[in-house]
Amino acid sequence: MKRVKVSNNVIRRLPRYLRKLDELSESGVDKISSRQLGEQLGLTSSQVRQDFNCFGEFGQQGYGYNVSALRAQIAGILGMDRGFSSVLIGVGNIGRALMENFCFADWGIHLAAAFDVRPALIGTEYKGVQIYDVAELEAYLRANHVDIAVLTVPKTAAIAVTETLTGNGIDAIWNFTNVELTAPNSHTIVENVHFSDSLLSLSYFVAERRDEEAAWAAREEK
Amino acid sequence: MKRVKVSNNVIRRLPRYLRKLDELSESGVDKISSRQLGEQLGLTSSQVRQDFNCFGEFGQQGYGYNVSALRAQIAGILGMDRGFSSVLIGVGNIGRALMENFCFADWGIHLAAAFDVRPALIGTEYKGVQIYDVAELEAYLRANHVDIAVLTVPKTAAIAVTETLTGNGIDAIWNFTNVELTAPNSHTIVENVHFSDSLLSLSYFVAERRDEEAAWAAREEK
Repeated sequence: MKRVKVSNNVIRRLPRYLRKLDELSESGVDKISSRQLGEQLGLTSSQVRQDFNCFGEFGQQGYGYNVSALRAQIAGILGMDRGFSSVLIGVGNIGRALMENFCFADWGIHLAAAFDVRPALIGTEYKGVQIYDVAELEAYLRANHVDIAVLTVPKTAAIAVTETLTGNGIDAIWNFTNVELTAPNSHTIVENVHFSDSLLSLSYFVAERRDEEAAWAAREEK
Repeated sequence: MKRVKVSNNVIRRLPRYLRKLDELSESGVDKISSRQLGEQLGLTSSQVRQDFNCFGEFGQQGYGYNVSALRAQIAGILGMDRGFSSVLIGVGNIGRALMENFCFADWGIHLAAAFDVRPALIGTEYKGVQIYDVAELEAYLRANHVDIAVLTVPKTAAIAVTETLTGNGIDAIWNFTNVELTAPNSHTIVENVHFSDSLLSLSYFVAERRDEEAAWAAREEK
């Protein structure tokens, strides 16, 4: 695929488009205009068109987008058709939550193996995924092609495991540890999951709501 | 606080500013320009200034921002000083992961209680938080002021629990269930945690990297 440098904001919106298109498909919608799509996502129609124009011509002027064709194009841009392979390190609460409830395959990613340090887990399977000793991680990475490491280890283990990963060909880490894993401009692609960003956005909206309520109450007292 | 309607994109950036300012503080930086702050976050300086201008005058023209003062202002805007109270429903993998590793208090939010259906958990404490029978949720909400519900129940329970919450004064839900909880334009503020958005962004960057590698390999073969 020919790629141009696309802004981070556009890339971040692509999964949201994908989810919306899946929703539309499920509701039986098969065509949508940029205006309608924008409205449902809180974007302007020109924003939507600009976003897609980063990747070439989608849809036809005046005819709108074909939902399933657009979905397939975005899935392709997101690499969902590349057959990426992943391993998960740290079968604790968050690791188990992902293995149990998060369908990696739905997003085109194969979860090939998991690793932990606890003897009770090593050698067992969880949700169809084999759990290995983390001591075997290096050998595993040398023997198998892995694109993405899902890092769900305790904070204290984050740096050591990251060194094993990056030292053995892993250049992409999905980081749940809240530890800054790499230096700026590192070759490794790190995607951090920041629960706090999400909670603080919610907190903002609650604060806004409480202020509105207080303003109404003050008005009624007058 | 006087509030104007601020775009969703600005609100979503506030937690990122906060994290960056915390990082700067820890590294002993006490002043920063909008240009420097923008560079560290992949934003232009005018973007940074525009974002802050939504909330009034921060910093001084030509002098930059005082890191700790700016941090305090953003924390205030995000409602971190409101003493919001929360309850968590569903002490499964993801619920336990949050109770164990996510410091609600760091974000100004008190986690007051947890609820589950499993007899083995009910009446116990986890990480200092009491776990009640979900059957007591309604009575609890009537007796205690709660601002935010953290929803970490299995998918099948999501709607029923949401009805109990919204029917008893809860107007904000932090939703980990991947279930669409409310109708559009509902009074309830729902913040969804979409792991897939994060993973797909990572997948995009990996796909981009693989394309670059392929292009280099092709060039070398010539």
